[in-house]
Amino acid sequence: MKIGFLGTGVMGASMAGHLLDGGHDLVLFTRTRAKAEPLLSRGATWAESPREAAEGADVVISIVGMPADVESVHLGSEGTLAASTPPRLLIDMTTSTPSLARRLHEEASRRSVGAIDAPVSGGDVGARNASLSIMVGGDDAHVKSAWPVFDLMGGTIVHQGGPGCGQHTKMVNQILVASTMLGISEGLLYAQAAGLDGARVLESVGGGAAGSWTITNLGPRILAGDTAPGFFVDHFLKDLSIALDEAESMGLALPMLALARRFYAEASEKGLGSHGTQVLASLLVTNHEGF
Amino acid sequence: MKIGFLGTGVMGASMAGHLLDGGHDLVLFTRTRAKAEPLLSRGATWAESPREAAEGADVVISIVGMPADVESVHLGSEGTLAASTPPRLLIDMTTSTPSLARRLHEEASRRSVGAIDAPVSGGDVGARNASLSIMVGGDDAHVKSAWPVFDLMGGTIVHQGGPGCGQHTKMVNQILVASTMLGISEGLLYAQAAGLDGARVLESVGGGAAGSWTITNLGPRILAGDTAPGFFVDHFLKDLSIALDEAESMGLALPMLALARRFYAEASEKGLGSHGTQVLASLLVTNHEGF
Repeated sequence: MKIGFLGTGVMGASMAGHLLDGGHDLVLFTRTRAKAEPLLSRGATWAESPREAAEGADVVISIVGMPADVESVHLGSEGTLAASTPPRLLIDMTTSTPSLARRLHEEASRRSVGAIDAPVSGGDVGARNASLSIMVGGDDAHVKSAWPVFDLMGGTIVHQGGPGCGQHTKMVNQILVASTMLGISEGLLYAQAAGLDGARVLESVGGGAAGSWTITNLGPRILAGDTAPGFFVDHFLKDLSIALDEAESMGLALPMLALARRFYAEASEKGLGSHGTQVLASLLVTNHEGF
Repeated sequence: MKIGFLGTGVMGASMAGHLLDGGHDLVLFTRTRAKAEPLLSRGATWAESPREAAEGADVVISIVGMPADVESVHLGSEGTLAASTPPRLLIDMTTSTPSLARRLHEEASRRSVGAIDAPVSGGDVGARNASLSIMVGGDDAHVKSAWPVFDLMGGTIVHQGGPGCGQHTKMVNQILVASTMLGISEGLLYAQAAGLDGARVLESVGGGAAGSWTITNLGPRILAGDTAPGFFVDHFLKDLSIALDEAESMGLALPMLALARRFYAEASEKGLGSHGTQVLASLLVTNHEGF
């Protein structure tokens, strides 16, 4: 299958690699061409714009940074829907707003193109191991036709409902991730102040009712003072802001989410936007030596 | 080995059962004798007081409700240390204060009795499956001698440090559990408001970076509107209050923990103290049908 692929960041690069391994023809566009080089050297083709990547493709997959980028790569003048021979299906795997997912679906429909929102969870680890959780929103027939492609990248793939429902589910996911990250930050701060050994604490709490993906995968990085992304603070801040806006528009008060958003906004203001989300705990646990 | 066992609540009953299965002689005391009956019918002996249960025992294990109960069963006039032939070792598995653990260790030492704090995590499920995480504080020799007993009840057993360190580690554990519970409560509230299907959402978020013991074990109970304990709201409120007090005395500000404590205090004030901790989410997700 000919697949246009837009965005080769931390997540996208691994995911595109799995599609190449699966025998698909990949046409790549990403903002910084250097980031696409490893995939180009493995046989992917370069396109000068999202429109060019979409030209005559069966499917176009996007996993870019912000909702504005999603809008630009699909709905802009050089976007996928401006192709003279548009693709059959657009799959946006960026974490973006439910309303933009619905709008993209509408605009695509007008050109007889399908559109699915399919954000992912599982971090860089999940992207590398093709064990991502893929949360899918869209029409039944389109989702069914996208399944073989999802299978190459994901471990848990669930059709959540119509257009936008993938994004809504991802918001739930991010609310949970935010809470766990607050917990591990405050928990490790407490542990350090109480004079405990960080690694032993992680062993204990990882094995009981406090166990989580975050503890297992990010706990050791936090103890090592390793703040490399994983997942960027600025992207997470964007996700939490979307979730909080959506919650507000549904009339919900979510104080934990508001607290997490405030912490990540502070981290971003401190210039830590391109660190991994675990930097929150690393900020609190100030002296990593001997912990 | 002759083991005195104090407290046969949700957790204690399962744990005592594993000790019986391991071939130990159990002498039981608990506040409500009826709760001990299943164990008595399996061969355990009844004692009229903690002191009587401790008389001539090798080890006494306590898993009772509150720090005041710990104080009473060990240090009271009818407590274990009042025995004429005191046991070799006291193991308190109640979640209690680090300072009481240190005091118990001191008072026991004066009678040449060892004392270990060894609170657990893993809930009713972990207690039944003998897969608990046991967080151990105490002197090396005592901890080593207790290991075979811990092995019958736990899956992850870690010696965290001297007296009180088991309790401190449990506080870290409860901070994490509190955060996850806040996350699942706000997340499922969001999911319901967005019109998503609860079971499908759990499937998606359980499989990615938001995955946790809480999602896996309590998520389905929440969706079913099942608020049976597991772990009592009032006990959790006690734990969070201890953690917050300890944090304060160490000069730490833990706003997520403070938020969680406030929510659980409200649940308790509403008369939900003897429900399971998952009632927090059930309170928010008001209409379970069709979710």
